[in-house]
Order: sequence, then structure tokens, then C-alpha cells
Amino acid sequence: MPATYTICGALIPIAEGYTTVDVQIEAERIGAIAASLPVVGTLVDATNKLLLPGFVNGHTHSPQFWQRGLIRQLPLELWLADVFDSSTRDLEKIYLGALGTAINTLLSGGTCLMDHLLPIPNYELETIAAAVRAYKEVGIRAFIAPMLQDQSFAAGLPEGMKSLALKPFPLSTGEVLAQMEAIITQFHEPEAGIYIAVGPTGFQRCSDELFAGCVELSDRYNLCRHTHLLETKAQYKLARERYGGSAVHHLYQLGFLDDRTSLAHAIWLDEPDIAILAETQSTVVHNPLSNLRLGSGIAPILKYRQAGVNVAFGCDGAASNDAQDLLESIKLGSILHNVTDFEYKHWITPRAAIAMASTGGFKGVNLADQVGSLTVGQVADLVLYDLTNLSLLPRTDPVQLLVLGRPAQAVDSVWVQGRRVVADGVMQSVDGDRFRQTLLHPAQEHSSPQFPMIHQVEAHYRTVMDLPECGFR
Amino acid sequence: MPATYTICGALIPIAEGYTTVDVQIEAERIGAIAASLPVVGTLVDATNKLLLPGFVNGHTHSPQFWQRGLIRQLPLELWLADVFDSSTRDLEKIYLGALGTAINTLLSGGTCLMDHLLPIPNYELETIAAAVRAYKEVGIRAFIAPMLQDQSFAAGLPEGMKSLALKPFPLSTGEVLAQMEAIITQFHEPEAGIYIAVGPTGFQRCSDELFAGCVELSDRYNLCRHTHLLETKAQYKLARERYGGSAVHHLYQLGFLDDRTSLAHAIWLDEPDIAILAETQSTVVHNPLSNLRLGSGIAPILKYRQAGVNVAFGCDGAASNDAQDLLESIKLGSILHNVTDFEYKHWITPRAAIAMASTGGFKGVNLADQVGSLTVGQVADLVLYDLTNLSLLPRTDPVQLLVLGRPAQAVDSVWVQGRRVVADGVMQSVDGDRFRQTLLHPAQEHSSPQFPMIHQVEAHYRTVMDLPECGFR
Repeated sequence: MPATYTICGALIPIAEGYTTVDVQIEAERIGAIAASLPVVGTLVDATNKLLLPGFVNGHTHSPQFWQRGLIRQLPLELWLADVFDSSTRDLEKIYLGALGTAINTLLSGGTCLMDHLLPIPNYELETIAAAVRAYKEVGIRAFIAPMLQDQSFAAGLPEGMKSLALKPFPLSTGEVLAQMEAIITQFHEPEAGIYIAVGPTGFQRCSDELFAGCVELSDRYNLCRHTHLLETKAQYKLARERYGGSAVHHLYQLGFLDDRTSLAHAIWLDEPDIAILAETQSTVVHNPLSNLRLGSGIAPILKYRQAGVNVAFGCDGAASNDAQDLLESIKLGSILHNVTDFEYKHWITPRAAIAMASTGGFKGVNLADQVGSLTVGQVADLVLYDLTNLSLLPRTDPVQLLVLGRPAQAVDSVWVQGRRVVADGVMQSVDGDRFRQTLLHPAQEHSSPQFPMIHQVEAHYRTVMDLPECGFR
Repeated sequence: MPATYTICGALIPIAEGYTTVDVQIEAERIGAIAASLPVVGTLVDATNKLLLPGFVNGHTHSPQFWQRGLIRQLPLELWLADVFDSSTRDLEKIYLGALGTAINTLLSGGTCLMDHLLPIPNYELETIAAAVRAYKEVGIRAFIAPMLQDQSFAAGLPEGMKSLALKPFPLSTGEVLAQMEAIITQFHEPEAGIYIAVGPTGFQRCSDELFAGCVELSDRYNLCRHTHLLETKAQYKLARERYGGSAVHHLYQLGFLDDRTSLAHAIWLDEPDIAILAETQSTVVHNPLSNLRLGSGIAPILKYRQAGVNVAFGCDGAASNDAQDLLESIKLGSILHNVTDFEYKHWITPRAAIAMASTGGFKGVNLADQVGSLTVGQVADLVLYDLTNLSLLPRTDPVQLLVLGRPAQAVDSVWVQGRRVVADGVMQSVDGDRFRQTLLHPAQEHSSPQFPMIHQVEAHYRTVMDLPECGFR
């Protein structure tokens, strides 16, 4: 049973400006919000602190924690070859990667994450178990979408199956779905804050049968759906080649898109695609850092908002966003789009950005009716920011400072499902310094590591993407 | 006389990978770099630390320190109305703003900044004196370019002089230049690390005579030249209206462009303009955060690099980049351009980015022959980063982690002109906590402050920029 708290004197944003309130947390929920409340349970002094609902990191890949700073400057399809070649096969590193990702999320304002998690081949259940162990230990709310595919790497490239002799994917669609069901029955535990979601990696390496099987599992077990969508121009070309049209329309026909579906990236969409996302109430998860790092493009976020498509923010994995700071994603993901529209009245304000990160994020994982706003009766996923932190001074507009500044260690306290998991900036259930020591060894510099698979793919990629044959790298 | 140091066991990047060296600092300069050196002076243990040359914050406006988080989401021309309306007129705040900007720069890897400083009217010399006091106290290398203009706000807008009834600029060109010369003779003191530069604000509010006068002062006193250049589409339109052609060509004809000239923003340039920058060896200072925040555009940085134009990084003022973190500018300023060119072999690598920030930055202020690289004989502007900081773990490629990650408090030590101004992450000559306390009061939330001047300008701006007459804000 979580403890009871009275947060006293917290600044909260209201329609016009700010006000100062007390907030009671009782039995996991926000029990009361008022100007002055009797102190019940633990008193938390929130003088000079800003209280906001927790944010959602709507898309990440926790094992890539070990690939931070490792991968060269490459577009997704070639970067992916390096990522696959350097992925960890160590279950302890899976656990530590999830731990690190959860800590980064909590200390940057997130109370919930969507881990699109690539299992270690032949150790699929053990991989999920390692991540679940970490998330329970830290106390974050975690969606785990095991990344599924039933087609080879070659299938993910335009003309890939014609020209690339890469090994086929080793499991059948039925085997992949059977594993997925085993994961669901073993690990899906919403009351503990651990949710399994169906996560086909993306249409580019998944058959229609795999998508259909995921839809069936999602319906039967009431699970969220998550996938990569049209992250690159190569994927846009591939969809035209494979379906003779739009990947979004194809997923729509397969019944994959609904109000429990979140779609990572969603960069190369046309107007009719956007209308489908609005109609199906699907959520776009915007990963601006990764989209720049991989040269994928600028997602049409202002168009999504104008069309009524729900947009959340994500960090993406550390191999393509070498930091895992949700506030950084929120900042860049809001200001980036100002250069796409001269009509400044369309620009995303800092207040809109925090609504996208909280309400929008929880809507994307189908929990917005229970969590994501400062409302009495909602489950208490709350974050308290220290406004006396140097990175938030001098004090002007606190939400503008938080979103447009570069807060460093400004998170004072975090509650997840009413449980205080961060207090005074310190993780409560994990020894942060011991975790840091664990990461210190071995401290061996990797410089421009050379991985083999890219050499099988690069010439083909350059041909299909109309890049000159001889690079000068 | 600065002290002598032996930095022992520092990791430094070399052509292939990294190596570990000792570095001696003697009489302001790098005295020796070798695998093993006798300890002279103060021993600095650099085990698990990365040593790099200091970076240059090539463009900022220190008084905007007080406008962090304050200004709404607006394009430059309207934002500027709010900025002018909310600029500080308090000399103590000028001093504290310069102090804060210098601290932010040092703790994010910079040893030098270019402060394009708007003096308080009628207190021009006092304004410069306040900033100089702060920079000397902190011990940063500072260029101060007093921001000069001799035309009104209205002149800076297309058709502005025709349609806008704003008050004319109160000083004549001669008066402005006389003030500038007084500032030079009183404050230009290179041996103390304080350099005055000529800084006409931009062609949009400066006459040809003012530019000519600045060129003459620059030549006579051997000063750097600094100006805003073609930051917005409105400025591009204005140049066509005023000169019948390119602002770059016009500045070239005025003799303003040379290898001591740095140009902030440089977004709306055509191919012939780029050729002029290359020919004159001018430097572009890239301010990516500000350019997104104000919707100004994405500067064609990859084209500049291909044309041989020197590019440095800047933060710009805190009213348009509410953080002042140089590493954030370097990160965004390198990855942003990946979406502008599918040829990934053109993308800026982290190693190229740190060269732009150090060598490129010092070239922009005409000091690259003396400072900006890890070379024996160069003046010691050096920064040591702690690789055991959680934000730089797990250890993969240290330079990739530094540039592509989100380092928080990773700066261990900073030397400027051989003087250690940061040690163990702590400012040596300024009490950081006392500074923070100074900023705490008054802590009054400002929410959506309403400033008057924008109402005189917005309708005109919307008309000349072809935006619909009735906004729906």
C-alpha cells in the first residue's frame, strides 16, 4: 500500500498564470487539491517548487543504453546494420539498460515509458524478465512492447529481397506470435504498473499475418499496440513498392490502427494518411532527436495537431538519441516546427508541449482517463521541479523555463502510482552512485568501431536511394 | 602571473582514436604534451578525464539573461518588440547578466564569448564597464561588441518606413561612432582577455555610413567585426527593397567583410552570397536554438562547409535561447543539418563539431594562431571533462558522448589564458551559490506578460509577410 502525502505550497499552472496549492496523495490517487489542506501522511514542502503531471516517454529501446555514443553518422537503414551488429546479448546488460533508461526518464520528468524492446534471440522471455525486474525495482510505470518481426533485414529495404543475400529471419510467424502470447501471460501485470504491448517493429520487416496476429492478441488481452511508422524516405519507397500505395492505408485495412495504437516517428506521411490517423484516433510519438541524428526528416507535427491527431513525445533508443532526457525531446520537439510554418499562431507553446507530454502521452497508452493531469481522483503520477535550481533562474515563467531552458537536475520528487520514487533529487529504491560505479568498468574507449554488416548493405542502399556510387567518406 | 600546472593522464583525441598524455601549462601557454612528464606546479589528476581546447560562444547578448523564459512564441521582428519593451535598464543587472552568461559558458565548455551587447541608452560606457567587471571577475575571455544602430525599429521591417509611425533613433551616426570610439579607448585590453569589437546590429537598422565608420574603427584599432546577417525572411525582403539585391553583396561593397568578421545567423543566403563569404574568409556563427525558437529557418551550414566558409557556434541571447549551454548549441547545430542532405557523407561528425566550436570559433575572432587547439606553444584555453559523470556513461566514444549526449555538470576544470577558473566543477573566483541566491529574489512568476510595442507592429508585419489579416491567437 503506498503512503499518504501532503504536498504543501506547490506552484501549479492554471488557465491564466499560476496558483499555489496543497495536494494530498492517498491510496495511489490525488485525494485533494486546495489552497490550504490539513497535513495527512508525509509533509512535502513544495515552496518554490512547480508541480506537474508526469510525462510519458512514448518510445525508447532500453538495451541501446549500451550503444550511447557508439554508432557513426548514418541514415537509419545503415545505422541499423551497425546497431544489430553491436547489440548486447547479455541479460545483465538488459537489466542495467532498463534501469538506466528508467532513471533517465524519472529524472527528466517522466513517470511512464514505452520500451520497444528487442529480445535477445533464444532468450526472449528472459529478456523481458530482466527489463521487468529493473522497472519494478525503480518503480516506474512501464509498457514493454517486445519488438517483433518475421522477415529479414533485407526485406526492410527497397528492392532488398531482389538484391541482398542476407540470412532469412529464423522464426515463422506462428512461432513469433506464440512467443508473444507467452510473454503476455507471464508478464502483463497492469496493477503493478507493468504492461505488455504488441510491438511489430514496422511494416518493413513484418508480414500482414504478423500484424493480424498482433491485432488479435491486442483485442483478446486488451493490450496497447505500438510500431515504427514511415520513419524514412526508404520506407516510403518500400511501401509504394510492396503495397502499391500508402503504408498507413495498409495498416488501416489490417485493422491495426485504433485509439490504443501509438506510432513512432510518422515522418513520411501524406495528407490522406494524416486523415486516417485522425479518424482512427491513433497517436503519433514524436522523436525529434533521433529524427535529426539519423537524417530521417522533420515530422509534420503542426499538421497533425491541426488535423486533431494526438501527438506524444519520445526519446527513442540511445543508439539514435545518445541522451535519454525527456525534457530535451519536449523542447526540441516543440521549437523544431517553428521553421516549418511562418504562421506563428500555429507554433507549439510550452504549455501545449507539457500537455502533449502528459495528457497526450497517457492518451497514447490508453490511460488518459486514469492518469496524466492534476485532477482529483486521478492516479498520482506527479513530478515536482525545484525552481531554485540555477538552471531555472532567474525566475520568469516557470513552464517556459522548464520547456525552453535546459534544466539540469531540477527534478526534486517523483510519484508513480502514488509511490514516491524520487525525493530531494535522489532515487529512492536504487542506489544511483552504485549504479554509476557499475557502469564505470570496463572504461575502454571505442573509437569508430567497424562493424561488418554495413558492408553488405551500403552499396545497395546508395543505389536505391539515388546517391552517387562512389562516396568520398 | 598565472600558475603552473601539470595535467596528468588526460585522454585526448588523436587522428585515430584517443591517447593518454600529460600536459604542462606554464606562463599562460601549453608548455609540453607528452606521454609522461615531470610534475611542475600544481598536479591535476586527469584520470578518466577528457581534455579538449576551449570552445567559443560566438554570439550572445548577455543582458537577455533576465529575459530567459519570458518572451512568447513569436518570429524575430515581433519578438524583438517584446525584447525591447522588457530589456533591463539596471546596471547591476547588466553586471549579473554578464556574470551568469560567463558562468553558463565556462560550465558548458567555453573559454571565450562574443557579447553583442545592447547598451542602456545614456549609460553606454557604464553598461560596458559593468560587463567588463563581470568578465574580469569570472576570468573568461570576452569580446564585447556594443550593438550599434542609427536607424529606428521601423527601418528594420520591409516597408516599415512607409507605414510605421515609430519614434526615430535619437542619436546621429556621428554620435554613435564617437561613443564607440570612447568605448574602444577605455575598455579594449587584449592582454587582460577583454576585447572590444565593432558590432553594428545588422544592415536592417544601420546606415552605410555607420558600417563605413565601423570599418574605419576596426582598421584603426585592429578590432574584430561582428553583426547579425539575414536572420529572417523579412530581412531578405528588406535587403531586396533597400539595395535592390543582396545584403551580403552590399556589405562586401562597404568593405565590412574580412577574416576578422563574424556574422551571426546567416540563414537567408543565396549561392553567390556564400561565395562572397568564402572569398572574404568571413565566419558564420551558427545559433541553431535561437533559429528554431524564432522560426527563422535552418542555416545552410553544410553548404557553407562545402564552400570552405568557416562556421562557429553560438548560443545567442537568452531571450531567444532560454538556456545558454554551448554543448547544446554544438549538438543541435551539428545534427540539425542531417535532414537537409540525404548524402550522409556530408553530415557533421562529433569530431568536426568540436573543431568548429574550438578552432572555428577562435578563427572567427581572429585568434586561431594563438589559441583553440591542443598544441605546444598555444595559449592555454583548456577544458577537462569528467568521464565518470553519469551523463557520459557507459563509456563508448567520449567525443561522441560529449557532443551527442546531454552532459550535465560534466566540466571538471577550465583554464583561460593559463588561469584555472573552474576546478572540480566549481567556479574559482565567483561564489556560485551566492550568485544563485542573488537570483532568487524576487521570485515572482511572470505569465504571458503583455508588452505594448508589438501592437504597433503586428498588423504591418502580417501584411508584409503575406500572413492572413485576422489571426486566431
